[in-house]
Amino acid sequence: MGKKGRVTLPTQEGMDKEIEKIIEKWGADAIRNSDGTQLSDGVKKLAEKVYATYFLTRSDQEWAKEHPDQLQQMYLMSNPSIAKENVLEIDIMDGYFTEQVTIDTNHDPKEWWEVVDRTSGEIIYKDNWEFNKNTGKVIINEVKKYHSYTVSFLVYQIWDATQMYNHITNDWGDKPHEMPYDVRHPETKEHILSALDNWCKESKDVDVVRFTTFFYHFTLVFNNYAKEKFVDWFGYSGSVSPLALEEFEKEKGYKLTPEDIIDEGYYNSPFRIPKKEFLDWLDFQQKFVSDTAKECVEIVHKHNKEAMMFLGDNWIGTEPYGKYFQNIGIDAVVGSVGNGTTMRMISDIPGVKYTEGRFLPYFFPDVFCKDGDPVGEANTNWLQARRAILRKPIDRMGYGGYLNLALEFPEFVERVEEICNEFREIHSHIKGTKAYTPTFKVAVLNSWGKLRTWMTNQVAHALWYKKIYSYVGLIEALSGMAVDVEFISFEDIKKDGIKEDIGVIINAGDEGTAWSGGNNWLDEVVVTKIRNWVNNGGGFIGIGEPTAYQNQGRYFQLADVLGVDKELGYSLSTDKYGFITKDHFILEDQTEELDFGESMKSIYGVSDSTQILAMQDGDTVLAVNTYGKGRSVYMAGLPYSPENSRLLLRSIYWAVGKENEIKKWYTTNVNTECTSYEEIGEFVIINNTNIIQETVVYKDENNYFNVILQPMESKWLDI
Amino acid sequence: MGKKGRVTLPTQEGMDKEIEKIIEKWGADAIRNSDGTQLSDGVKKLAEKVYATYFLTRSDQEWAKEHPDQLQQMYLMSNPSIAKENVLEIDIMDGYFTEQVTIDTNHDPKEWWEVVDRTSGEIIYKDNWEFNKNTGKVIINEVKKYHSYTVSFLVYQIWDATQMYNHITNDWGDKPHEMPYDVRHPETKEHILSALDNWCKESKDVDVVRFTTFFYHFTLVFNNYAKEKFVDWFGYSGSVSPLALEEFEKEKGYKLTPEDIIDEGYYNSPFRIPKKEFLDWLDFQQKFVSDTAKECVEIVHKHNKEAMMFLGDNWIGTEPYGKYFQNIGIDAVVGSVGNGTTMRMISDIPGVKYTEGRFLPYFFPDVFCKDGDPVGEANTNWLQARRAILRKPIDRMGYGGYLNLALEFPEFVERVEEICNEFREIHSHIKGTKAYTPTFKVAVLNSWGKLRTWMTNQVAHALWYKKIYSYVGLIEALSGMAVDVEFISFEDIKKDGIKEDIGVIINAGDEGTAWSGGNNWLDEVVVTKIRNWVNNGGGFIGIGEPTAYQNQGRYFQLADVLGVDKELGYSLSTDKYGFITKDHFILEDQTEELDFGESMKSIYGVSDSTQILAMQDGDTVLAVNTYGKGRSVYMAGLPYSPENSRLLLRSIYWAVGKENEIKKWYTTNVNTECTSYEEIGEFVIINNTNIIQETVVYKDENNYFNVILQPMESKWLDI
Repeated sequence: MGKKGRVTLPTQEGMDKEIEKIIEKWGADAIRNSDGTQLSDGVKKLAEKVYATYFLTRSDQEWAKEHPDQLQQMYLMSNPSIAKENVLEIDIMDGYFTEQVTIDTNHDPKEWWEVVDRTSGEIIYKDNWEFNKNTGKVIINEVKKYHSYTVSFLVYQIWDATQMYNHITNDWGDKPHEMPYDVRHPETKEHILSALDNWCKESKDVDVVRFTTFFYHFTLVFNNYAKEKFVDWFGYSGSVSPLALEEFEKEKGYKLTPEDIIDEGYYNSPFRIPKKEFLDWLDFQQKFVSDTAKECVEIVHKHNKEAMMFLGDNWIGTEPYGKYFQNIGIDAVVGSVGNGTTMRMISDIPGVKYTEGRFLPYFFPDVFCKDGDPVGEANTNWLQARRAILRKPIDRMGYGGYLNLALEFPEFVERVEEICNEFREIHSHIKGTKAYTPTFKVAVLNSWGKLRTWMTNQVAHALWYKKIYSYVGLIEALSGMAVDVEFISFEDIKKDGIKEDIGVIINAGDEGTAWSGGNNWLDEVVVTKIRNWVNNGGGFIGIGEPTAYQNQGRYFQLADVLGVDKELGYSLSTDKYGFITKDHFILEDQTEELDFGESMKSIYGVSDSTQILAMQDGDTVLAVNTYGKGRSVYMAGLPYSPENSRLLLRSIYWAVGKENEIKKWYTTNVNTECTSYEEIGEFVIINNTNIIQETVVYKDENNYFNVILQPMESKWLDI
Repeated sequence: MGKKGRVTLPTQEGMDKEIEKIIEKWGADAIRNSDGTQLSDGVKKLAEKVYATYFLTRSDQEWAKEHPDQLQQMYLMSNPSIAKENVLEIDIMDGYFTEQVTIDTNHDPKEWWEVVDRTSGEIIYKDNWEFNKNTGKVIINEVKKYHSYTVSFLVYQIWDATQMYNHITNDWGDKPHEMPYDVRHPETKEHILSALDNWCKESKDVDVVRFTTFFYHFTLVFNNYAKEKFVDWFGYSGSVSPLALEEFEKEKGYKLTPEDIIDEGYYNSPFRIPKKEFLDWLDFQQKFVSDTAKECVEIVHKHNKEAMMFLGDNWIGTEPYGKYFQNIGIDAVVGSVGNGTTMRMISDIPGVKYTEGRFLPYFFPDVFCKDGDPVGEANTNWLQARRAILRKPIDRMGYGGYLNLALEFPEFVERVEEICNEFREIHSHIKGTKAYTPTFKVAVLNSWGKLRTWMTNQVAHALWYKKIYSYVGLIEALSGMAVDVEFISFEDIKKDGIKEDIGVIINAGDEGTAWSGGNNWLDEVVVTKIRNWVNNGGGFIGIGEPTAYQNQGRYFQLADVLGVDKELGYSLSTDKYGFITKDHFILEDQTEELDFGESMKSIYGVSDSTQILAMQDGDTVLAVNTYGKGRSVYMAGLPYSPENSRLLLRSIYWAVGKENEIKKWYTTNVNTECTSYEEIGEFVIINNTNIIQETVVYKDENNYFNVILQPMESKWLDI
């Protein structure tokens, strides 16, 4: 295998010698500057390709200062205030960070703002409130006493969210705040494009323009203590402005209200079941962003450079799994590989020449310090990513941060060399061929479908939240599993039914969220199509509160399919019987105690065909059911672990009724996995832990052998 | 103190000598026959009063057999069935116990039954289904495929629920099944009344007619395995019949539908927020039951006997806390004392001459056996009841079951003697005077209010359920607490506001239940009145999911008052900050780890004034807030324990802002309590445990002393 290629190195000024050494050691063929560093000419010559980060909307702060009316905007909601007197004054900026945003006094509040009575849900007539520019307060006259009121108001963004975050986190002191300007203003757009053109002209050594990113940042709002107040990696709030809203009205033929953006203060988090208006907004912005980004890419191409997009920061509107993305014509996408899920989120992006993943840990002082464990973090990250890479690899890898920090940890430098070699080794084996998957596909069903491919149940890129880890584990398990995964929406089912090749549908999430689906489960087309499909042999897996919406005597609308329902208190009078079956196909590989994470209380069996496989503290946490020719599995949660990944795999095969086909490129030890590439006649067995593992490997049901794997080993064998 | 009186003894045939001894020993002044036993003349002379159980609706099985069309009835719902073909056949009795109920073929199904599409919620037009008497199946034509259907149908009750339960539990073999007949039929009513009259005439030795009970049994339905299928101690299902429904229509001016009774299969469990139609039904039946029971009582009185009612079994429609109860003119109520709550449920009944409690354990073989611990159970029962008795005593006590079993346990006989003596001692001290309470009242707020006084959050009389014990603990703590408690409804608040003497309002329960209140919290009158009241100094305590109904950006509609809300997933993007304060007035007496039972996940602070006092596994479980001049406390649950009872007491005093008044007849050790009777100049200190306890006792803030209490001791002292 080659000792060079597929690796991008972050660089630093004044370290040319060390960089040369490390390029050699890690086999890097590309180098890039990080935010805040510049490449020296010496260094630029060491690599085949030089990446340069480019910020489209904040490179020219002079422009920003000269055009304060063309800065990016945002709708914010004031804190809910209770009217205790006949007049209520609301300090709308209370709780917000005045260094990040400032009230928009250019646009008429009476036209663009909204005062809402949150007790009654009514919009307050505009003559009944006033905004006082001097005090920053909205005064509501003739309020209803003890009702709760909010003000939805417009601000300008006067500090770019990423620069603010880095500035505050790294204590950049009096380094100027960068203000983001809005490409939707024709004048600003022209300036952005010509600045890019000029920069390309001047940056002759740059081979790859790494857009970081395009125009609109995901929603990140700080509070009055300069700490994070709101973060939504998928959030479109930062793309909103009166100009955009006016153009929306022209394009879509109707007007959005502030509440369409404010959404009761939830700001259309992806956990909210998306309303038509918000989906229209997404469509509108995607179209605009893709058209404008395309113009940027064309400039880059004109200068014979490649255009790469960072999947993060100002990525809003690009939507790599949306219908406008490929229109941009971007050459490559790079993103952070936090785990297997985020790896697949990058590697599955359609229509780009190559993808690249930035591995963890970042070379930052929080890990590269006396008490830090950079090698341990690198191993954890690599093991989680590797199983996903073997399913569908990113084309390139890299690291980020300050190289000098990494160089102080020689063991880390060694370990990264091994990881880079192993990454290249994978590519040298599989040669772009497809890993073995069974004949059926697994579909993850939620309100978002394809648009949120590998992005379900998440708040911010790979961040842990107590409320989500028991669902994110599903996606993480799937990211490295020998099955093809599709993300489908309720709309897909309504329009197109359930496609032929789908063997198992999974619905996972808390009641009322976009992931579980909320009132989509009242749609008779959805429930009858799924019932019909399962009855005819389909497999259905529910996790947490699948199909949940209290109606007509059921909480799980497909309780009949799942064989379980959840007790809300209404049916305590009904006796629940149920005994535990411990012997079952889906439990055969389990050696540890079952772990359902946050789990789910009050689940109970509802049908004679329900088999309860596990109860915890009196609640059913694992159950299976048969339904006509089909089957279903219920799990109370699925945090990621090798055991749970196996539990899911077995559940999938059982649900689809193909238990006898599971022992194909299969290992008996849950801490190991096997991936086969039949086209090239090779297969690989991996150890997902950092201790020795022994396992039986099944080529098929009749051909198996024992193997011992060293810690983290990947063993390539000929079929 | 007297060594005799206030105690009722169960008797048995052929044990006259033993009975004489035990009457003497326990100081019994009344004896009664149990279900299935008869009193001998010898025994009858030993007591001042003789009770005899009387069953109004099943004493004459000849009558029942001769009038099968006048048996009691019931609406049942078939199992939900999924239509997988164009025609659906539903075996409506599937899952029911054919020995308990039989399909009513006398009344036209097309008029009285209902077939419901549970997928769409639509009622199926009556021409589109047929009932086949021979197969017991309903055939639905032209169904919508994969919709779910149920049939609401009428049955006759052919086995009295209590007799069935005892019969099956005690294996009574071929003892005939007793069928309950319906007093609503004029002919049957006349028969019931004249039979009672005759029986009174003949039963000259009987002083007290113990009605067990009146006409309608609480809902108790068995399944096809002769096991309990549905139990609701408050359920009115067994009071429904076409005759009653027709009379309802005449009286109330509109017709009930089967669905008003079936209620999606929840059968109007008290956890369901009661609909107007069901409340009207309750009113209608209460009126009828009270009128008819009154006639029975008058017959008893005519014979110079007392009329006593058992609070249980066929108690439906009596509603001791309802507006018609006192119309019955009953002399006494007797009920089972399962704990402090059920003790108060009996002792607080207004308008009767005396109340009586049947203590645990029953003299049944499950406890009175080799491995049983009758003394332990008696002690537990006594300690839980005693603290409630000291607040508001029942007038008499007694035991139930088979005396011969008890006599085999001499220690138990001794212990009961002590308990009887202590019970009489309490009465000899307090002489009907009122225990000390502070100037403010505590109100428990839910959908039922006064009607369910001491009956909140329960399924069946004092039975443990996983889903309720964390709420029932609230009521149990209050039952023995030095505060006056009122049960109020949302309607009360809407009509009358919050009464002057209420200091603290408590709302406790799961979202969507009658206890928490569901959509009552969308009522602007309710929320504004409570906000106003708290703002002006009221105290609000929320347990579990208080004020919960997802709307306008809030799950807890009074999140502003409570200072906390619950995360459903919509606001994960919003950062939650909060640190724990451990020093707080309400925690001062805690020595053990806090225990919130089933607890509540995803609770977080929403206001700067919120003080989080405890978190468990990352979730807020105890928090306090200030709101204007008022205060609030949030608890994630409150299972009963001495610690939690104290936590509640302190929360009440803190919420009402009277911390400086708590040390009045107060003990510092949570396992002890003090009750004072200022009118008689005495107070009592009790040890609620069976180990020695030491405590400081506060007469008031400046007068306190140390005391050591023996296990379970009650120590009476002069003020």
